[in-house]
Amino acid sequence: MMGSPQQFIQKDYLEAVLASSISPMDYLQSQRATPGKYFLVDVRNAPAEKKQVKIEGAHDIPLQELEQRIGELPKGQTILVYCWDVWCNMAKKASLILLNNGFEVKELSGGIAAWQQLRLPVEQL
Amino acid sequence: MMGSPQQFIQKDYLEAVLASSISPMDYLQSQRATPGKYFLVDVRNAPAEKKQVKIEGAHDIPLQELEQRIGELPKGQTILVYCWDVWCNMAKKASLILLNNGFEVKELSGGIAAWQQLRLPVEQL
Amino acid sequence: MMGSPQQFIQKDYLEAVLASSISPMDYLQSQRATPGKYFLVDVRNAPAEKKQVKIEGAHDIPLQELEQRIGELPKGQTILVYCWDVWCNMAKKASLILLNNGFEVKELSGGIAAWQQLRLPVEQL
Repeated sequence: MMGSPQQFIQKDYLEAVLASSISPMDYLQSQRATPGKYFLVDVRNAPAEKKQVKIEGAHDIPLQELEQRIGELPKGQTILVYCWDVWCNMAKKASLILLNNGFEVKELSGGIAAWQQLRLPVEQL
Repeated sequence: MMGSPQQFIQKDYLEAVLASSISPMDYLQSQRATPGKYFLVDVRNAPAEKKQVKIEGAHDIPLQELEQRIGELPKGQTILVYCWDVWCNMAKKASLILLNNGFEVKELSGGIAAWQQLRLPVEQL
Repeated sequence: MMGSPQQFIQKDYLEAVLASSISPMDYLQSQRATPGKYFLVDVRNAPAEKKQVKIEGAHDIPLQELEQRIGELPKGQTILVYCWDVWCNMAKKASLILLNNGFEVKELSGGIAAWQQLRLPVEQL
């Protein structure tokens, strides 16, 4: 089937967004169906007293420490990064660093704000 | 006028976002100026008691039923899909399916959360 | 290092998002490190009584007046545009107009909603 140029632009964009992110619901479903597929990393740059909690099971590696601590990340899992909210960009910066180091990576859409809005489990830092 | 490579990347990205989505305000304006341009579809996968309401005038076709029920959609209108919020991805998955089936499609930005935050009309499911 | 086609798509997308936007935190940090780098513009189309406040230091140029008032914008600074929230698209429309007129431009992610949620300073319109 043929498509207009605008439709090709849309497809590329939508495929890129879907390749680069996963929703909280899809992540929960993946945890049940394929445990261990994702290695969850909180990349927020902030002191613990400001962050207070992180998503249950997340590893705490701030963006500013990511390159030095990259050896802590497993190559066999997809790294799933998140920051504060839909408007923060630390998860996208972290994604680029990880892609450039050969990792598979996605962002957890909406960060910890969407996660908490959905009343999903968090834990103390 | 010439542009830097970064500016070309930005233009492609911005054009793709604007081709793929419409804001609640622009949708309302379009309804007044060009009634019937859009066919609004709620693609949330959830039981009715969880969704409770949908945007006024929306057709309720969950993402998981979209391919079987694609015959319910009109070819002469732009299909406007939405899900929960800015961080959900069902509307983007639905957009790709619809594009691949030859439809014109856009996402209503922000989903039902932005719509309700703006106190725009909803109706019982 | 080689990458899969999907990884190239992801990199292009992430680079485009990061080229096209800046988070509130990164903007504040830039104001301290490089004052005058950005020229902040509120592009919301709404009467003052609906907008009420704008981000401290922002210039008020609604999207619908942008092309006529483009001479008010400095060529030596990056134009930083914002609108209401993550789901509004006026900042992206303004970005395209400004790119097509030879300006460097970014969107302040999350608009005035994220800014106020972070309790950052605003001023009366």
